[in-house]
Amino acid sequence: MIIPGKYLLFLGDVADRLDAKTACGLLDWAPERCAGQWRLPSCGVDLGLEDMDFEQALAAGARTLVIGVTPFGGAIADSWIAPITAALDAGLNVASGMHRRLGTVPEIAAAAERSGASLFDVRVPGRSFPVGTGRKRTGRRMLMVGTDCAVGKKYTALAIARALTESGGKATFRATGQTGILIAGEGVPIDAIVSDFVAGAAESLSPDNDADHWDVIEGQGSLFHPAYAGVALGLLHGSQPDAIILCHAAGRTHVDGYPDFPLPELAECIEANLELARRTNPAVRCAGISVNTSALPVEERAAYLQAIGDRFGLPCFDPVATGADALVAHVAATFD
Amino acid sequence: MIIPGKYLLFLGDVADRLDAKTACGLLDWAPERCAGQWRLPSCGVDLGLEDMDFEQALAAGARTLVIGVTPFGGAIADSWIAPITAALDAGLNVASGMHRRLGTVPEIAAAAERSGASLFDVRVPGRSFPVGTGRKRTGRRMLMVGTDCAVGKKYTALAIARALTESGGKATFRATGQTGILIAGEGVPIDAIVSDFVAGAAESLSPDNDADHWDVIEGQGSLFHPAYAGVALGLLHGSQPDAIILCHAAGRTHVDGYPDFPLPELAECIEANLELARRTNPAVRCAGISVNTSALPVEERAAYLQAIGDRFGLPCFDPVATGADALVAHVAATFD
Repeated sequence: MIIPGKYLLFLGDVADRLDAKTACGLLDWAPERCAGQWRLPSCGVDLGLEDMDFEQALAAGARTLVIGVTPFGGAIADSWIAPITAALDAGLNVASGMHRRLGTVPEIAAAAERSGASLFDVRVPGRSFPVGTGRKRTGRRMLMVGTDCAVGKKYTALAIARALTESGGKATFRATGQTGILIAGEGVPIDAIVSDFVAGAAESLSPDNDADHWDVIEGQGSLFHPAYAGVALGLLHGSQPDAIILCHAAGRTHVDGYPDFPLPELAECIEANLELARRTNPAVRCAGISVNTSALPVEERAAYLQAIGDRFGLPCFDPVATGADALVAHVAATFD
Repeated sequence: MIIPGKYLLFLGDVADRLDAKTACGLLDWAPERCAGQWRLPSCGVDLGLEDMDFEQALAAGARTLVIGVTPFGGAIADSWIAPITAALDAGLNVASGMHRRLGTVPEIAAAAERSGASLFDVRVPGRSFPVGTGRKRTGRRMLMVGTDCAVGKKYTALAIARALTESGGKATFRATGQTGILIAGEGVPIDAIVSDFVAGAAESLSPDNDADHWDVIEGQGSLFHPAYAGVALGLLHGSQPDAIILCHAAGRTHVDGYPDFPLPELAECIEANLELARRTNPAVRCAGISVNTSALPVEERAAYLQAIGDRFGLPCFDPVATGADALVAHVAATFD
């Protein structure tokens, strides 16, 4: 699947930057492919990109309208259908990470048919996967696990893979969600896999590799999430991680969107993940803690990270604010 | 979905009774609907039903050929296609619990088209499900959890639901797998649900009910299964059980089909399930232990059950050999 760029990022009418994860991820990790943004009048998010209509975007080199928002449940909102249809009629392709296929919306299918443009559904698995085997694979694997959804698992994996590569190591970012797939150009949309095959799909995502190669695997959900814990566990078992990295968002006290569900303590979350991960890799250990500190005052962030790092005796970093070099040094020192 | 009876049970070429779970379940829990069996010459299983060709089965009142075997991964074997096609041409409908839809096999689709017979895919979800909410529901729920797949979770749930009803209580068996759905006539094929929606589907399966009503929920997989643990966890969280029943098969030492994966101790399995279940129902407790003792000598079974029951201070029963009356009495005494 090769999606023609540049991208025009569709933000719809989302109110919150957290709901524009895909657009933010593309802008941060593939800025050269982002031509501009397109928003409904009621949209509350501004990425700082130029607002463009479809003709302006085409003139600026855009070839594909990318649905840059990830609303709860992955549905295509009614209010998006008219602009998506208009984009197709203007000559843009459309790429989406929604659960529902673009082509199942009759107006969108008809517009794509009229214009000859392509529809890309990156969250729809393009193949089937076998049942998990539990067989140990060669090479090393590092999995991001979280206290919640949307705490920085993808950014952490991207930052670690980049830092490992820049330090001269062998590493591959393995995408498990729609944004990661759009950034990496490949991957498995793990939460869209039929549940019987999740662990098997995770096994397929990081096949046998060189002994000193790291697969750096984007995590999904959280073992403590009332809706998505099963996804997280299947990914954990199938990934067979040698190392887990706990990801957290500073200031988050409850599961996002679930006010009755407080987040676990970091230690509890690490221990629960290790205990379950040992089923497919008894040697698993926690190699570091990644915290999105953007909710903290700038002057408090370093001390906050330092305190957590000292408490656990592990590198604690913010993949955006500090980068992952400390983690890479720790991994180099502790995995010979 | 109403599947016309009686059923002719298709056993294909399976070697092992464990792989004929669907046929065995129908015979044990809905014998009045089982007209006969149909086997390939290399089949190693005999249910004790009369072997019938398709014309004999029709004469005996059969209306539907039910695929009675559940091979690893849920695929339709090549060797089945000719007999399934012949059954359709003879005038039988066909029902299947495989992951792959019957109608995606061109020969089967063509035969159904020719004969006008119906194809029933009970493992294909007939609807979509919302994301889990974690919201507490009224009524009581009891979930079967297991040390492994194929240890008796469905039989245990059916026996408990029957015993609860016979004792004058309100109870509903809730099917989560293809055999259970064929027996109950409804349910959710939980392992066929896209992983993001497993907990939500489990929530939908046992909606709000009377305060003194028990939903007795068939379990799936095991938290200790290298391929299916995620399915088990999503079902556990979405079911919000007030009580779990641990199900085990005496003599089973390793995960079926996974010789490198020893089974957990019963106490470890209970504790792991309770710890994770508390996330959506902090009041959850283990109410009993169900053991399939068929692998033990008859004279040892009672003492084996007694010893486990004494060790845990819980009713320990075999749903086939002893029935679930002890469990029902314990539940009546401890859940007022």
